[in-house]
Amino acid sequence: MGLIVQKYGGTSVGDIERIKNVAKKVSHDKQKGDRLVVVLSAMSGKTDELIKLAYQITDEPSERELDMLISTGERVTIPLLAMALQKLGHKAVSLSGRQSGIFTDAMHTKARITKIDKNYVNKYLNDDYIVVIAGFQGISENSNVTTLGRGGSDTTAVALAVALNADKCEIYTDVDGVYTTDPNIVSNARRIERISYEEMLEMASLGAKVLQTRSVEFAAKYRMPVVVKSTFKEGPGTWVVEEESSMEKVLVSSVVFDKNQAKMTIVGVPDKPGIAAKIFGVIAREEINVDMIIQNVGTSGLTDLSLTVPRVEAGKAMKLLNEAVKEINAKSVLIDEEIGKVSIVGVGMRSHTGVAAKLFSLLADANINIEMIATSEIKISCIIRRADVDRAVRILHAGFQLGGEAPRAEQAQ
Amino acid sequence: MGLIVQKYGGTSVGDIERIKNVAKKVSHDKQKGDRLVVVLSAMSGKTDELIKLAYQITDEPSERELDMLISTGERVTIPLLAMALQKLGHKAVSLSGRQSGIFTDAMHTKARITKIDKNYVNKYLNDDYIVVIAGFQGISENSNVTTLGRGGSDTTAVALAVALNADKCEIYTDVDGVYTTDPNIVSNARRIERISYEEMLEMASLGAKVLQTRSVEFAAKYRMPVVVKSTFKEGPGTWVVEEESSMEKVLVSSVVFDKNQAKMTIVGVPDKPGIAAKIFGVIAREEINVDMIIQNVGTSGLTDLSLTVPRVEAGKAMKLLNEAVKEINAKSVLIDEEIGKVSIVGVGMRSHTGVAAKLFSLLADANINIEMIATSEIKISCIIRRADVDRAVRILHAGFQLGGEAPRAEQAQ
Repeated sequence: MGLIVQKYGGTSVGDIERIKNVAKKVSHDKQKGDRLVVVLSAMSGKTDELIKLAYQITDEPSERELDMLISTGERVTIPLLAMALQKLGHKAVSLSGRQSGIFTDAMHTKARITKIDKNYVNKYLNDDYIVVIAGFQGISENSNVTTLGRGGSDTTAVALAVALNADKCEIYTDVDGVYTTDPNIVSNARRIERISYEEMLEMASLGAKVLQTRSVEFAAKYRMPVVVKSTFKEGPGTWVVEEESSMEKVLVSSVVFDKNQAKMTIVGVPDKPGIAAKIFGVIAREEINVDMIIQNVGTSGLTDLSLTVPRVEAGKAMKLLNEAVKEINAKSVLIDEEIGKVSIVGVGMRSHTGVAAKLFSLLADANINIEMIATSEIKISCIIRRADVDRAVRILHAGFQLGGEAPRAEQAQ
Repeated sequence: MGLIVQKYGGTSVGDIERIKNVAKKVSHDKQKGDRLVVVLSAMSGKTDELIKLAYQITDEPSERELDMLISTGERVTIPLLAMALQKLGHKAVSLSGRQSGIFTDAMHTKARITKIDKNYVNKYLNDDYIVVIAGFQGISENSNVTTLGRGGSDTTAVALAVALNADKCEIYTDVDGVYTTDPNIVSNARRIERISYEEMLEMASLGAKVLQTRSVEFAAKYRMPVVVKSTFKEGPGTWVVEEESSMEKVLVSSVVFDKNQAKMTIVGVPDKPGIAAKIFGVIAREEINVDMIIQNVGTSGLTDLSLTVPRVEAGKAMKLLNEAVKEINAKSVLIDEEIGKVSIVGVGMRSHTGVAAKLFSLLADANINIEMIATSEIKISCIIRRADVDRAVRILHAGFQLGGEAPRAEQAQ
């Protein structure tokens, strides 16, 4: 008898009929004889609705109170699913983050799981309950409710799978797997059969929304097999697993993009030691996520420094940078919100040379200007004009021959 | 420096503007220098909405899961008020039932508070926080979320006031006090200045909705002064306090009615010992609230037995009684949903004779038939046709001279 942790996202539990549908699926899986833990998100749109209420009260809601508020969404879906499972004849119980023994640090709205006390859930599993758990939330050491950031329910599910020593973690969502790129932009994008943790991690952090970055970190660290599947149609999904030798045969496995970034340039920065530390120190204190950084080496003792941040944090970042500018005697700060990022990812890059050169020539041929570049062992990202992003995605997807009907594993042979 | 516990009901926090309005009131009161604990209900209609979701899943939701679901309503209003108070410059924190140390028994959907650990709240009060607490909910010994039944936030507020040794408990609602009867039915109904715990208790259990019965029991037991006031307009409200000598001068202090009852009659009950015990044993096990009981003494060894229950529980009661009928060899069960109850309440009845006689003659003169009667030291209740209830209320309110402009205390002199 195995143990499976399943997670269903917001659209999968978006209304009563869909919750009943999830209950049928879970009931069907339960009848195969495995023990089941089911992690749920809030109904789709609910968390945004709650956040909106908070911002109708104040422009700067306390994050402790915001967590108290937005953690309620999952606490509505879980008892409803438990009731639906009971109606189908199963023993079922819903548990909040606290009741599941999920402990986090105190970083409200983006807390990290520090410990899961598996006794809370095992007590019910051992008594043959289907355990339905509120995703996205935990409890800090001083007993406050915390949330894990956008997509946090993925992390809840994988972390529980690890803590409970599950056989696998199944992520059910509104797409039937991880694709070579967004099928809305490239019609012949392909579902990937198997992908390595490392590639999935790059894809998630580069803006692919199918899994929360931290959930992939957890899965990678503890080698938990994760499969991404559709709630609404049958299919094999995409397995996220350890790197396999066949994966290296593929040069590039996916094209990822992100249109939600902004670029800031500090003009006339004195080219002295310690200046960059000062700038990034200020930004880090406010926990703004800086993505890329470029510094031009100047000739006149002055230099320009560009960085990119998520567009939602641009206002806050500009305020901080404008203060820093005065302090370090730079000239000014410019903001450019019309940028986008396009990236290619693949473990094959490690063993194949010339991938970067091919990327640059593909974009150059299409007359797309590259403004910033960042690389890692298995990815290359370029900042370009936002208006060029869709076109760049199509060119790269075709140029690296990611399209077609056949699943990737076969094509690689 | 005193300590005040305030409670705001569902209409008082019905939308964002109203929550901001409550924040202003609380802020104003805080500036007087007292320490403040604020208990909130869910936004009006929210609890019903959640219950409706549950019944869309199943006709018989598990009460443990129902509590998990319906306890979320208060968890939305409390962080919103805490944010609004913070915006006004106060230190404020929202606490769930669990975080406030409110422990209950395990009777889901109608749990009773067993213990309040005051350290949870005092920690924040001592640090000058305004503490905003979710009403209606607590936590059972085995860590499940429980709720306290309709109007349970009143009980949360009074119980907290007792546990924290507050100077008083202020109940803010959409009416400006307790009235001699419903002003929607009798236009010259008067607000009562001061009323005894005992009278308030009878009124609450007879169907007056202004305070939950259990909250009055708590207040009475621990002699906590409670004042009922309007959130929306200034005024002295109604004080619920220990009996005062002036109160006895008033014959009757209020007329209360209840249109939500049903009467059941078991026909042809064998007139033997132990039969009634059998019938009520069945009903008590399912925790149906039986209100009145009448048994006709028969001449032929057979008798009829009538009882009243809340109309929402009539279906369940009928099912149980039909089973009991077979078991005890009675003939049949009849149900009558067209009944209503009208009651008069007043501590003055203890020392004045003739109140019952006057009641009966007032109703008889108006040609209103009394079907069942129940009395206590300070109240008389009559079951009549539901269609006659409004008329009966007007006749009794006028007959016992409860109307007029002057407040009750003055009129009594």
